[in-house]
Amino acid sequence: MSAMSATATPTYDALMAQCARMARLEHLQAIAVWDRATQMPPKGNEARAAALAELSALLHRMRTEAAFGDGIVRAEQEPLSDEQRADLRELRRRWDADTALPEALVEQGALAGARCEHAWRSQRPANDWAGFLVDFRPLLANAREQAARQAERLGVSRYEALMARYEPGLTCATVDRVFGEVRQWLPALVQQVVERQRREPLLEPVGPFALPAQRTLCERVMRLLAFDFDAGRLDVSAHPFCGGVPEDVRLTTRFAEHEFLSALMGTVHETGHARYQQRLPRAWLARPIGQPRSMAIHESQSLSFEMQLGGHPGFVLQLAPRLVEAFGAQPAFAPENLQRLLTRVKPGFIRVDADEVSYPAHVILRYEIERALIEGEIEAEDIPALWDAKMMELLGLDTRGNHRDGALQDVHWPSGLFGYFPCYSLGAMYAAQWFAAMRRALPGLDARIEAGDFAPVFDWLDTHIWSQGSRWTTEELAQRASGQALDPAHFKAHLQRRYLG
Amino acid sequence: MSAMSATATPTYDALMAQCARMARLEHLQAIAVWDRATQMPPKGNEARAAALAELSALLHRMRTEAAFGDGIVRAEQEPLSDEQRADLRELRRRWDADTALPEALVEQGALAGARCEHAWRSQRPANDWAGFLVDFRPLLANAREQAARQAERLGVSRYEALMARYEPGLTCATVDRVFGEVRQWLPALVQQVVERQRREPLLEPVGPFALPAQRTLCERVMRLLAFDFDAGRLDVSAHPFCGGVPEDVRLTTRFAEHEFLSALMGTVHETGHARYQQRLPRAWLARPIGQPRSMAIHESQSLSFEMQLGGHPGFVLQLAPRLVEAFGAQPAFAPENLQRLLTRVKPGFIRVDADEVSYPAHVILRYEIERALIEGEIEAEDIPALWDAKMMELLGLDTRGNHRDGALQDVHWPSGLFGYFPCYSLGAMYAAQWFAAMRRALPGLDARIEAGDFAPVFDWLDTHIWSQGSRWTTEELAQRASGQALDPAHFKAHLQRRYLG
Repeated sequence: MSAMSATATPTYDALMAQCARMARLEHLQAIAVWDRATQMPPKGNEARAAALAELSALLHRMRTEAAFGDGIVRAEQEPLSDEQRADLRELRRRWDADTALPEALVEQGALAGARCEHAWRSQRPANDWAGFLVDFRPLLANAREQAARQAERLGVSRYEALMARYEPGLTCATVDRVFGEVRQWLPALVQQVVERQRREPLLEPVGPFALPAQRTLCERVMRLLAFDFDAGRLDVSAHPFCGGVPEDVRLTTRFAEHEFLSALMGTVHETGHARYQQRLPRAWLARPIGQPRSMAIHESQSLSFEMQLGGHPGFVLQLAPRLVEAFGAQPAFAPENLQRLLTRVKPGFIRVDADEVSYPAHVILRYEIERALIEGEIEAEDIPALWDAKMMELLGLDTRGNHRDGALQDVHWPSGLFGYFPCYSLGAMYAAQWFAAMRRALPGLDARIEAGDFAPVFDWLDTHIWSQGSRWTTEELAQRASGQALDPAHFKAHLQRRYLG
Repeated sequence: MSAMSATATPTYDALMAQCARMARLEHLQAIAVWDRATQMPPKGNEARAAALAELSALLHRMRTEAAFGDGIVRAEQEPLSDEQRADLRELRRRWDADTALPEALVEQGALAGARCEHAWRSQRPANDWAGFLVDFRPLLANAREQAARQAERLGVSRYEALMARYEPGLTCATVDRVFGEVRQWLPALVQQVVERQRREPLLEPVGPFALPAQRTLCERVMRLLAFDFDAGRLDVSAHPFCGGVPEDVRLTTRFAEHEFLSALMGTVHETGHARYQQRLPRAWLARPIGQPRSMAIHESQSLSFEMQLGGHPGFVLQLAPRLVEAFGAQPAFAPENLQRLLTRVKPGFIRVDADEVSYPAHVILRYEIERALIEGEIEAEDIPALWDAKMMELLGLDTRGNHRDGALQDVHWPSGLFGYFPCYSLGAMYAAQWFAAMRRALPGLDARIEAGDFAPVFDWLDTHIWSQGSRWTTEELAQRASGQALDPAHFKAHLQRRYLG
């Protein structure tokens, strides 16, 4: 076949060319979003919002134009390889979800979310639940309508339709099975760990910790984690995130002078996301199968870094001398004390401050509430009573009347983001499952980590997760990487070994 | 008329909506270009180039689609205000120029320019004129072809067609008149000034000058020049520029430890560009008349800041204490010495290092050569001999065999950028003309500048230049601002007063 002759898969090829065009425009979107969070002066905000909205609308038109959908149908008839079929599987899924929603409904939802989120910024500190309800009700109504339309198109339940935006194929049956198991043993485990840790001595690091030293420390730890600074940056933003594009990953953290561990471990977390992005398969970058698999899998990478590796005694041994170098010596930087600091369990009101043991309780509570909300089983005004009951049941905490540190604490619901919360804890469980698989494959793994050699961890993740992009469904990926579907027993075993071993 | 009723100018309105869409996409382009120069790690380059090319192609399609051209014709029949007619004048001009070029010719030119510029980076240090010619000939051929097509469409000469990209309406007759006058008195004036300055004592500042102190100094001077840091930033790039968007102006400089005046005065120069951008009329931002008038007018702002104001004794008086604060006291920072440093005249090979007196010689030489090149009166191999003769005639310098510091010194020709050079010196002449008009309108101007009050300068520029955007042609703007067309006599008078007064 000469270079000029027509391919046997002209429609598939045209679809891929269109995907590449969209990826190039999404590149500009990613950089402009990163710039807004890290560089943009305040008076640039309005013009930037308009510019980003213009590009979003353009990308939406490209994703939903009829010719694109027709192309998918025609390409499905072409003689494709398995990998090419996987590309179409991803395109089909996105096309179905995107075209199930009338544009006006999406715009109305974006507006309602912007309004509710803006009001929430002052309602949260004011503990103003009643005020919040006023803006939240129309937003919830819109989310339910979107969920209903996508559920009908995709043939799943309404809440599943929203979860599918972040974790395609995830069913409530799976989440119920997994969270149902965890619910059985988690409250007792939390209490056991708290009881045991009560007897341990613990030294708090003494600040202040100069910001330039913190920044240098974070960059050194990122290098330890093999982040490629020729293909990415570390910057500062109000809310840490990992953005940019695979060829140029932009991650952020935030620093405070009185405390350095949050910024540091936040950076370790984002570095997990970042390495997944940096190591996505280069040959597939513009193709659907070259994208990260899903948000639960993404979180499984950040939590492999922050929790599985970050709480490992071998990582702590590497960290200790770097802290001394950054801030000078102090007793709190002794490895055994550092280890206790990094694995201290303390049930609290706030999800983002939670330790890895009590964290799933926060997620299970939110899952149960938002699922019932979207399915129409409860109304917005029912949230506080459910919140109070579940916090008492799962973590033994009294949250009555404290909306500020209760249902008003997260930005997700005020922004209209439903169905994401399960990904956080599924990610933690996948991370435990990956490390269990790693240990089976590499019997000397822990000894190597303790000797400061993290390469086996990175190599395993690269081979089994990063290099696979979206080649497989999440379930296939889990099977191929670990020989089984998601099993929370690995997470339980991890917690028992680390916290009760 | 109710809000829902149709306007009397539906086509004009649709054109403006399309202009707003393009401006929003150009916003993302500007930020991505700035990011590439200031933030992007090396491995991001290839993907960024592809992303920017995608957006350029998209914008080109939007600018040249037939419906847009038809819209201009139909809108010209609508009942429009004078301002709206000025919008159409700008659209018509751009449309004619953009659609005169076949896409393949533009792409071929971009490729030839990229190839020539890339080779030039090593040919220049190697003084390799013969090697340069190999890549430059096809680039020149392409530029001539583009010039011929645009000249035919616009009804101007070939070189005028290229100048029109930067300075619409500028004729060779005007440039010949202006440069012809300057040519008469410049060589003698340069020699006179050099002779006079030979007798003056001059102290060089003694470094090193710490980079953070230089940066703080530049920011303080930018504040002195009323740059709005809530609507812009200062960063570092290899080649200083002023980018971003009017609501968020991104300017850059570059620092060297051994010498601070280049970075500082480069920053003053870019701040002139930046304030023009920041003060463009807000109500017209998305409209053609809301854009900067032209590159000669843009340069007239940067040179108003760097040369007219930056070399003024009143500015030097403000600068001196800030230098002491940044670097500690030293004899070179005495205002009289600083004044001499900022106004030292020394003919040299390199345009970008030239003082304001000898600078026009560099531009006149390039104008005469590139005009003849584009018109086909000479060939590329004729350049060195012409260069040598003109450098000897204008500045008394022998450049024979020194291509590195001769025709290979600028990035313009290797990039295929012809027709821009005149803007630099026309900008310097307009700047002198603006200050002459200011002095006529405000008799106490110099006393106020000497007292450290620059507000009258900013107010005059704001009223007469910045707030006018592209409301008028350059010639109309000059008439309205200064009562006359461009007259180099003001520039001559400025040089005589400052250097021989």
